[in-house]
Amino acid sequence: MTQLESARKGIITTEMKAVAESEFLSPELIRDEIVKGRLLITANPLHKNLKPIAIGREVRCKINANIGNSALLSNLDEEIGKLTNCVKYGADAVMDLSSGGQISQIREAILTNSPIPLGTVPVYEALAIAGDPMLLSEDVILNVIENQARQGVDFMTIHCGLLKRHMPLACKRLTRIVSRGGSIVARWMAHHGKENPFYTRFDDILDICRKYDVSLSLGDGLRPGSQFDASDEAQFSELEVLGELTLEAWDKGVQVMIEGPGHVPFDQIEMNMKKEEELCHGAPFYVLGPIVTDIAPGYDHITAAIGATMAGFHGASMLCYVTPREHLGLPDAEDVRNGIIAFKIAAHAVDIAKKRPKARERDDAMSKARYEFNWKKQFELSLDPERAREFYAKGHTEKRDEDEAFCTMCGPDFCALKNSSLIDK
Amino acid sequence: MTQLESARKGIITTEMKAVAESEFLSPELIRDEIVKGRLLITANPLHKNLKPIAIGREVRCKINANIGNSALLSNLDEEIGKLTNCVKYGADAVMDLSSGGQISQIREAILTNSPIPLGTVPVYEALAIAGDPMLLSEDVILNVIENQARQGVDFMTIHCGLLKRHMPLACKRLTRIVSRGGSIVARWMAHHGKENPFYTRFDDILDICRKYDVSLSLGDGLRPGSQFDASDEAQFSELEVLGELTLEAWDKGVQVMIEGPGHVPFDQIEMNMKKEEELCHGAPFYVLGPIVTDIAPGYDHITAAIGATMAGFHGASMLCYVTPREHLGLPDAEDVRNGIIAFKIAAHAVDIAKKRPKARERDDAMSKARYEFNWKKQFELSLDPERAREFYAKGHTEKRDEDEAFCTMCGPDFCALKNSSLIDK
Repeated sequence: MTQLESARKGIITTEMKAVAESEFLSPELIRDEIVKGRLLITANPLHKNLKPIAIGREVRCKINANIGNSALLSNLDEEIGKLTNCVKYGADAVMDLSSGGQISQIREAILTNSPIPLGTVPVYEALAIAGDPMLLSEDVILNVIENQARQGVDFMTIHCGLLKRHMPLACKRLTRIVSRGGSIVARWMAHHGKENPFYTRFDDILDICRKYDVSLSLGDGLRPGSQFDASDEAQFSELEVLGELTLEAWDKGVQVMIEGPGHVPFDQIEMNMKKEEELCHGAPFYVLGPIVTDIAPGYDHITAAIGATMAGFHGASMLCYVTPREHLGLPDAEDVRNGIIAFKIAAHAVDIAKKRPKARERDDAMSKARYEFNWKKQFELSLDPERAREFYAKGHTEKRDEDEAFCTMCGPDFCALKNSSLIDK
Repeated sequence: MTQLESARKGIITTEMKAVAESEFLSPELIRDEIVKGRLLITANPLHKNLKPIAIGREVRCKINANIGNSALLSNLDEEIGKLTNCVKYGADAVMDLSSGGQISQIREAILTNSPIPLGTVPVYEALAIAGDPMLLSEDVILNVIENQARQGVDFMTIHCGLLKRHMPLACKRLTRIVSRGGSIVARWMAHHGKENPFYTRFDDILDICRKYDVSLSLGDGLRPGSQFDASDEAQFSELEVLGELTLEAWDKGVQVMIEGPGHVPFDQIEMNMKKEEELCHGAPFYVLGPIVTDIAPGYDHITAAIGATMAGFHGASMLCYVTPREHLGLPDAEDVRNGIIAFKIAAHAVDIAKKRPKARERDDAMSKARYEFNWKKQFELSLDPERAREFYAKGHTEKRDEDEAFCTMCGPDFCALKNSSLIDK
């Protein structure tokens, strides 16, 4: 039984108990939210040593980190290095987007080493097998999905909402299709004159997902790739289809979340979140950024963290990180680190804003440590202790204790905290 | 006459014309907004070679970068290096917060080299002269203010709203007073048992400001220094006083903006912006961040850019940058660069969201260049072309042209843009 089927039968599974505990919520609430489709637990029973997580509207905001090689860069060892960074810096889930060589081996190694849920985009491996988008077949696709499910993949992105009738809408855009999966499917449809195989074979895909309790992440092949294209007809027409397919998946007992943009002006983010909730019947929204301006390549972890905070505040349940290398190249381990911390910040800011149980305890402990000039404690409480320590140390020529009541910002005589601590003495 | 006095007489000054042109707005609108107190032009006539800017509710969102030495770090040459970075990366205004040696000489050099408005916090130099907070006198303070005004300083932060009656409120807090100026004034008041000299001599300060058309930035000595202290009684009691003093300044023809927090949970930012607008009669709000979580030292340019975007979206007119070194030490030139770009992103995201005239043109040009794989154009349109070029080049072992239709993210066969450009061929 999938988590959804168990929940419907009133069963509280081990996974529901575990996530309830880590969220400081009751197992009954978790179960009820699963029944409503507003929460999912991405946990393929074949993924051993997995610590399950909940993605949903009543729990802490999650972040996903994308790793994986390309034909031009990276190998198995490097990808395991990235995975290590993902776990170390606190990613809640990871997606392996490998499209270069050794796809199956890399995934196997990641699954063995990952205590967090693993997601994939099966069309990438299907394309690697077929060799050319035009040579993709429904059978290859279904085989890849089943093989990955059997390997233990926890959730999969399926680009099932982009249909033939949407193609003219996409071709009107400034940046057309910026989803890799979406563009592959689009070329296939244009070439063969046939409907999207992920749509026509959706029922077969559901059977596989139900069998292995793979959660579906309904992909947004038509997410906007520019501020200009945001919130257009192409985007929302696809979202409508995803809403219909959500109901089909639920009918079969398959857990679902919806993927979202992308590039969205800050003022349109709230509207985008509400539209998804309405069109997709409350299924959790899993957004990529969104980035709120197009002119900052090299800093898109920041443009995206801004949009992601706003998205999470207005209802998104999982935020897919963007690294500083976005739009410029494949991220390396340091980019992964910077992307994750930026998104930990976004998700945590959302949890504080939404007053999730105990969310602000760490902030308050940090503020207390600041007032007490307890630098060691401050570093320990930091999202990235190494970085904090490095920045604190830089500029000091002599060896310093970590208990001095000032830093180089103001020096000993100008420190506001020190001054204000002397007020009532 | 100050800009405010001219505007009241119906005069459109050279400065009003200049800012109207750069904002793509009519000079009459600029003048009317100045009359209402909703916009100011920080332009001391003694600051030569200044390109004036408008800070206000109907114009593009501005960013300020803080530079300046401390007793422990940096000298005149380094500060000029930071100023160069401020101008190069697009800061709209700069504040010299020097509190170490050579304060007057550093300011003189910055004024000579700065085409953007310069702000200061006179109590820092006053304290350097007095040697000890307890030895500060009203005369020293007024002398410093007049000397700085005569030197050409465009705007000054005056901590005039923190009163004796607020001290018990501040002492109840988790992080008390985190404003350097505020903490100095507080210690002086506690020691002497007297009212804040910036408050008691506010009228004399206004006379100086009127004479030199120095704009006042009413400082928030009680801005919260932690999520825990945000939006508390101390903060809003001071803000009320700032609202009263705004009216006094306007009576004397002096231009005013209000300084704001600080550390604020994301969900409280909108309320904070509305409260300032109401209590301070529409005077522009100049906020520091705010940062939306306390647990990310080393990344506070990001925590702050998130809060700043939300603040600007809900009405803040100028965003004071925060660098990655905040809470850990004095920023160096590279920190200044990272802080400025993060805040350029925030301000630009606000301008797009608020549909300021022509705000999105550069984004659209970037998106077009992306679709055309015109990498050279992409770099030129970037907020930080050097960084973008560096990230693009990394990972390529051979020399590459800048006209290839892919990057290392997806490689030549997986590029979504390339794939989607082939759809209707």
